[in-house]
Amino acid sequence: MKTNPGRFFEDYRLGEVIVHAVPRTLSGGERALYHALYPARHALYSSDEFARGCGLAAAPMDDLIAFHTVFGKTVPDISLNAVANLGYAEGRWRHPVWPGDTLRSQSEVIGLKENSNGKSGVVYVRTRGLNQTGEVVLDYVRWVMVRKRNLDLPAPAPVVPELKKSVAPGDLIVPEGLDFSNYDFALAGEGHRWGDYALGEKIDHVDGVTVEEAEHMLATRLWQNTAKVHFDATNREDGRRLIYGGHVISLARALSFNGLANAQLIVALNAGAHANPCFSGDTVRAWSEVLDKAETAAPGVGAIRLRLVAVKQGGAEFALKGADGKYLPEVLLDLDYWALMPL
Amino acid sequence: MKTNPGRFFEDYRLGEVIVHAVPRTLSGGERALYHALYPARHALYSSDEFARGCGLAAAPMDDLIAFHTVFGKTVPDISLNAVANLGYAEGRWRHPVWPGDTLRSQSEVIGLKENSNGKSGVVYVRTRGLNQTGEVVLDYVRWVMVRKRNLDLPAPAPVVPELKKSVAPGDLIVPEGLDFSNYDFALAGEGHRWGDYALGEKIDHVDGVTVEEAEHMLATRLWQNTAKVHFDATNREDGRRLIYGGHVISLARALSFNGLANAQLIVALNAGAHANPCFSGDTVRAWSEVLDKAETAAPGVGAIRLRLVAVKQGGAEFALKGADGKYLPEVLLDLDYWALMPL
Amino acid sequence: MKTNPGRFFEDYRLGEVIVHAVPRTLSGGERALYHALYPARHALYSSDEFARGCGLAAAPMDDLIAFHTVFGKTVPDISLNAVANLGYAEGRWRHPVWPGDTLRSQSEVIGLKENSNGKSGVVYVRTRGLNQTGEVVLDYVRWVMVRKRNLDLPAPAPVVPELKKSVAPGDLIVPEGLDFSNYDFALAGEGHRWGDYALGEKIDHVDGVTVEEAEHMLATRLWQNTAKVHFDATNREDGRRLIYGGHVISLARALSFNGLANAQLIVALNAGAHANPCFSGDTVRAWSEVLDKAETAAPGVGAIRLRLVAVKQGGAEFALKGADGKYLPEVLLDLDYWALMPL
Repeated sequence: MKTNPGRFFEDYRLGEVIVHAVPRTLSGGERALYHALYPARHALYSSDEFARGCGLAAAPMDDLIAFHTVFGKTVPDISLNAVANLGYAEGRWRHPVWPGDTLRSQSEVIGLKENSNGKSGVVYVRTRGLNQTGEVVLDYVRWVMVRKRNLDLPAPAPVVPELKKSVAPGDLIVPEGLDFSNYDFALAGEGHRWGDYALGEKIDHVDGVTVEEAEHMLATRLWQNTAKVHFDATNREDGRRLIYGGHVISLARALSFNGLANAQLIVALNAGAHANPCFSGDTVRAWSEVLDKAETAAPGVGAIRLRLVAVKQGGAEFALKGADGKYLPEVLLDLDYWALMPL
Repeated sequence: MKTNPGRFFEDYRLGEVIVHAVPRTLSGGERALYHALYPARHALYSSDEFARGCGLAAAPMDDLIAFHTVFGKTVPDISLNAVANLGYAEGRWRHPVWPGDTLRSQSEVIGLKENSNGKSGVVYVRTRGLNQTGEVVLDYVRWVMVRKRNLDLPAPAPVVPELKKSVAPGDLIVPEGLDFSNYDFALAGEGHRWGDYALGEKIDHVDGVTVEEAEHMLATRLWQNTAKVHFDATNREDGRRLIYGGHVISLARALSFNGLANAQLIVALNAGAHANPCFSGDTVRAWSEVLDKAETAAPGVGAIRLRLVAVKQGGAEFALKGADGKYLPEVLLDLDYWALMPL
Repeated sequence: MKTNPGRFFEDYRLGEVIVHAVPRTLSGGERALYHALYPARHALYSSDEFARGCGLAAAPMDDLIAFHTVFGKTVPDISLNAVANLGYAEGRWRHPVWPGDTLRSQSEVIGLKENSNGKSGVVYVRTRGLNQTGEVVLDYVRWVMVRKRNLDLPAPAPVVPELKKSVAPGDLIVPEGLDFSNYDFALAGEGHRWGDYALGEKIDHVDGVTVEEAEHMLATRLWQNTAKVHFDATNREDGRRLIYGGHVISLARALSFNGLANAQLIVALNAGAHANPCFSGDTVRAWSEVLDKAETAAPGVGAIRLRLVAVKQGGAEFALKGADGKYLPEVLLDLDYWALMPL
C-alpha cells in the first residue's frame, strides 16, 4: 500500500525521533490569511513599523502561525489514528519566525503507556519546529491517545515523562532585541499595561464569532493538517466536521485583543485542554484569567501568565467547570500560556 | 473594565484628533485575498508590467484595499456604537499604496449635532490614512449616528461642517508619473476610452455574485473591522449577520469591470449611501451612470465621475429610487466617485 | 453596448490569435491561498529549501496555479458562451513560474467544426501562457462547444486539428537545473520512488474533502475566471452554482499526495474530461492509475504518466465507466498527465 495509514500505538518506540514531512516556506500570504481567518489585531504582528519601535527587525509571523505550521506537519505521523488530543506542556517559542523562513518539524517519543483496556495507549512526544538554519523556533510536549491495530501485542513498559506544571518565568525566552521602553500604547489599542493586571483578575473579551465550515477548513488546510475528521462530512456518523482545536485557539487568542491588546508575544504554552468539540455554526467567545506575573531581563518587558478560555453560545459568564470538576459543555478550550507585555 | 465599550455621542469633542490603533503592513497577501474575495480585474492593480506601462513603479494595491484598511481602524473609535453610517464626502486618494507600506489612521471630529430625540447624535469626522513616511494616502469625511449613553447630558452646540457635493475636477490628485499615452487597451480588456462615455449614459454590468457568510467575514476581518454585527449570529434578533457596507462597495466596483474596465484608478469619493442592508444569500449586481467628465494635466489621462449602484436579486434594470424619492428596497449602495481613464 | 457579451461560434476565425486581457502578477499570496483552498502538500512547491535541494532557485508556484491563471484569462473570450468544455490535449509546462512573475495568455484558433444541428459548433484553441519576458510558461489545446447567435449563418469549412493522444516522453520539458540525485524522501513524505510504481497500478488516495460554496468561489475568482455559472445562484434554474472544473483538478491533484507525494512536477497534460458536474456539498475523493513511465535526461529524474480520477461520495472503488462505456455518474474528472518523480 502506498498511502499513509498512520501509526498505531504499537508503532512508536521510546526515544525514536520522527522526521515529519513537507517543510514549508511562509510569506506575507500566510499572514494575510491569518488576518482574514481570525480577528487578529495585536500590533506587533500587524505592523513592521510598530515592531521596529519594539526593537525587532520587522513584524514576525504570529506565534500561532508558527505553532499551527509546526503542529500540522506532525499530524500524519502522530495523530492520524488518535482518539483524543490529551494535553500540551513545556511549550516555548525560542526564535521569531519571519516571512521567508522555512519551517520543518520533528518529534521525539518521550513516553508510552498502554491503557488498561488494551485497545489503545497514550503517546507522549516532544515536537520541535526548526527553521532553515536549524534553529529551534518552537518546541512543546503533546500527548495523544492512539489506537492499537494489533490488540494481541503486549504492552510496552510504561514510561510517563515528568512534565512541568508550567514553564518557570526564568525559562521564558524573550526575542533578541525586544524593548518595550518606547512602546506606543495608542497604536497598540490599549492603555493598560503589565502593572494594571492583578493576579486572579478575569476579563470577558465580549466579542463573538460565528464559525463557518469554509473558514475552519481553509485554516486547517493552510497549516497542512490532514486529519480527515476536519474535512470530510462523510467521516463522522452525524455528518458534522470537527473543527481543528488549533482553530479555536487562534479565534480565542484573537478575541482576547479586546482587553489584552498588550499581551503581545506568546512565549510559552504551559497547558491546554480541548474541553469540548467545536462545530460550524457555533459562536465562539473568550475570557481570560491572570494566573501569574513575572519580570524579565528585557527593557520594559514583563511576562504575564494567562488562562484563555473559549466558550460557545449559551455559556454563563466565566464558564469553566461544573460542581463535578468537569468542564461545562459550552467550554471549548482551556489554555494556559505566558505572554510578554509592556511594563 | 479593560475592554473597549466604544465611544458614545457625548464622548466626542469638536476638534479632537483620535489616533486609531493597530497599524498594518500590507503585502501581496492582501492583494491575493482581494482577488479571491472580489471579482477584481482592473489591469493596473493586477499586473506590475501593465502598471509600468502606465508610468508607475509597480502595481499599487487596489484603492479600495487602502480605503478598507484605513476605514477598519476607525471602527473601534467611531462606529462601534453607531446606529447608522450616514454618508461620505470629500474623499481623495493622495498617494498610491504599495506592497510593504504600513498604514495607520486618525480622525478629526469636525461636526457634532444631537438629534431632537435626545437619544443620539450625528458625529462628523475627517479620517486620514497615513503611510510609514507620514504621507496622507487617503482622506475622507464620514458621518455616523451614534447613541448617547447618558441621556441626561445636555446637547453640545450643533456644528455641521459644510461639505462639497463632489470633489472638483481641479482638486483630483493624479498619481505621480501616471501616463496613459501608451495604454494597452487589449490587455486592459476593454476598447472603450474616455471619449466613448457620454454624460448620463447608464451601463448594466450584467454579472452577479451570490454572497456567502464565510466570504464577507473573511473580508471584513482582513480589514480588521471589528463591528460585532458582521460576525456574531447571536447579535441580531433575526440571527442574521449584516454584511459590511464596504464589502458591497468592493463587489460592485469589481463587477463594474464589465463595461468600465478602463476606469482604472479611484481618485475621489464624492458621496455614498448604504441604501439597504445586504445579507448572505443575496445575489449582488451593479450598474453605473456617467455623472461628469473632466480632463487632467497627466498625459492621456481623463477623469470620469460615476454613480455606482449595487442592487440585489429582484431589482428592475437601473433600479434606484421610488416615486417617493426613497431608495427601492433592492438597492444596496449608491456611490459617487471619480476614476481615471485613458483618453 | 460596453459590456462583454462573449463570442459566439460564428465570431471565431481559423488562425486568428486572441490576446486575452488582464495580465496578472503572482506572489506568495496566491501560493498561500492555494494551500488554504486545496490540501496541497507536494514539498517542492511548499519549501524553498526543498526546491533548492532539487536544483531550483526557490520553490516555484504550483503548476496548477500557472494553469488556472492562464486558463482564467481565456474565459471571457473562449468559454463565456460555451455549452461544454470538451477536452484538453498537448499541454506542456515549459518554464517554472516564480513569485513575482506576471502572466498573460493568448489563444490561436486551430479548429472549427459546426455541429450538425446548426445551433452550435466546436472551437479548438491552442492557448499559450507567457511570462513578463515573453517566455511561454505553459501551452495546451482545449476545445469547447459554443453556441451560434445567428443560426442563419452558413457553417465554416470544418477543420479538426490532429492532436496527439499524449505528449511523447521525448517531448517532456524538464525545468532547467532539476536534479533529484539528493532527493530527501523523508521530507517529501513518501518513500516510494519511480521504480516502485508499476504500469497499471491503481492507488486509492483515501482522503475526502467536502466542498463549500465559499471555497470554490474564492478559488475561481482568484484565477479571475468570470463564468457566471460559478458565482450567480440565480443563473441556473436549480439555483445551484456549478463548480469550476479546474477546482476539481486541484482538489484531486492535492489529494493524490497520499500515495503519490513524489509525483512532484506536472509537466504535461495529455487529456482531460470533466465527466460530471460538481456542486457544493459533494465530498471529493481521488484515485490514480499508472499509465506509462519514461526516463529523462535530468539526473535522478523519471517521468510517470498518470490517470487521475476524481469521484464524489457514493462511488465504488476505482469507479470510472459503466458497461456502456460512459462515465459513471459519481465520476467528476478523468485527467491524463505526466509528472516528474525521483528515480
